Amino acid sequence: MKPTSSGQLSFIRPYKPLLIVLSGPSGAGKDAVLYRMKVSGYALKYVITATTRQQRPNETNGMDYYFVTVEQFHDMLQKSELLEWAEVYGHWYGIPKAEVRKALDMGQDVIVKIDVQGAATIKKMIPNAVFIFLVSTSKDDLALRLRQRHTESSADMALRLNAADDEMNQISRFDYVVVNHWDKIDQAVADIIGIIRAEKCRVVPREITL
Amino acid sequence: MKPTSSGQLSFIRPYKPLLIVLSGPSGAGKDAVLYRMKVSGYALKYVITATTRQQRPNETNGMDYYFVTVEQFHDMLQKSELLEWAEVYGHWYGIPKAEVRKALDMGQDVIVKIDVQGAATIKKMIPNAVFIFLVSTSKDDLALRLRQRHTESSADMALRLNAADDEMNQISRFDYVVVNHWDKIDQAVADIIGIIRAEKCRVVPREITL
Repeated sequence: MKPTSSGQLSFIRPYKPLLIVLSGPSGAGKDAVLYRMKVSGYALKYVITATTRQQRPNETNGMDYYFVTVEQFHDMLQKSELLEWAEVYGHWYGIPKAEVRKALDMGQDVIVKIDVQGAATIKKMIPNAVFIFLVSTSKDDLALRLRQRHTESSADMALRLNAADDEMNQISRFDYVVVNHWDKIDQAVADIIGIIRAEKCRVVPREITL
Repeated sequence: MKPTSSGQLSFIRPYKPLLIVLSGPSGAGKDAVLYRMKVSGYALKYVITATTRQQRPNETNGMDYYFVTVEQFHDMLQKSELLEWAEVYGHWYGIPKAEVRKALDMGQDVIVKIDVQGAATIKKMIPNAVFIFLVSTSKDDLALRLRQRHTESSADMALRLNAADDEMNQISRFDYVVVNHWDKIDQAVADIIGIIRAEKCRVVPREITL
């Protein structure tokens, strides 16, 4: 931490990209928050998850998810091409490892959207990632969001709401909790951007190795 | 971390005000950054330091500092009315304790501007405060800022520049380092506001007791 001979201060550190893990219960608004960050032009690498679940009408392949077959998914898995994978509500989800590594190597901050089980797996592998738990203000609100999707069966919805209680208990594994008041999504986005700014100012930077 | 009977989630915590300690070498731009935060209307309690040093032409008593006599200062000290005090460059500086406590009790976030020695003292008393080290980009820049004040003698300036090296070594006691590029002060302000937002999202909140 001494000034270098040039007079520049050595704590103006070389750029350390962050790995940000955005998680939380289904229906907390992870997609909406990420979408808002994307359209505001916030410079992050938004990692796209591969999934075997069915594409929803409003989703685009290669934008929202990589929609793959079960066979394609297992092929990626066998070739160790996935950073993390999980079966959630009967479907497979996985994060292409190469995409994360490439971005970090280029000095880009990476954000990964993942369910709470997946976040727990990443926490074991990469404890120095930044773990953010996004949550809506109430369970009623959570149910409302799920209903508004209009694309879930009642059975699917009950399954997700039961899972939400367990997920809440896992919050202690996270660094930050961001509350997404459904009518104030910009506040949640500002919180996440604030967290990223703050993390970049840490005296002890996080070392990420994949 | 379980949902309460009302359906509200218990981790929507009661408001915990923060104590933010803004420090760094002389000439790093602490005053300029705080001024920018104030005029932008950012809701913080800006604690005013009492000092025995001479008022500069551009300073207002009760706004920039409480300018007091040595006798008045020692009276406050004897009555334990100061949270922290120090002799810096031959003058006394102290933080009126009542002002900090009153703000925290009202749920207001408090920001204290203090030299590096003073920050070390507060760190011992209140380790859970948020410690931010503000620094300008280079020593040349630091000298330039001091010169631009036009109010320091050459001897004073040499004393301050020598002190700056020691202060740099103390950075490890801080949580965050914010780099104040002299032509991009808004970036430093945004970093500090980001740090405050992030700290308010911590899963493990900081408990402050005075």
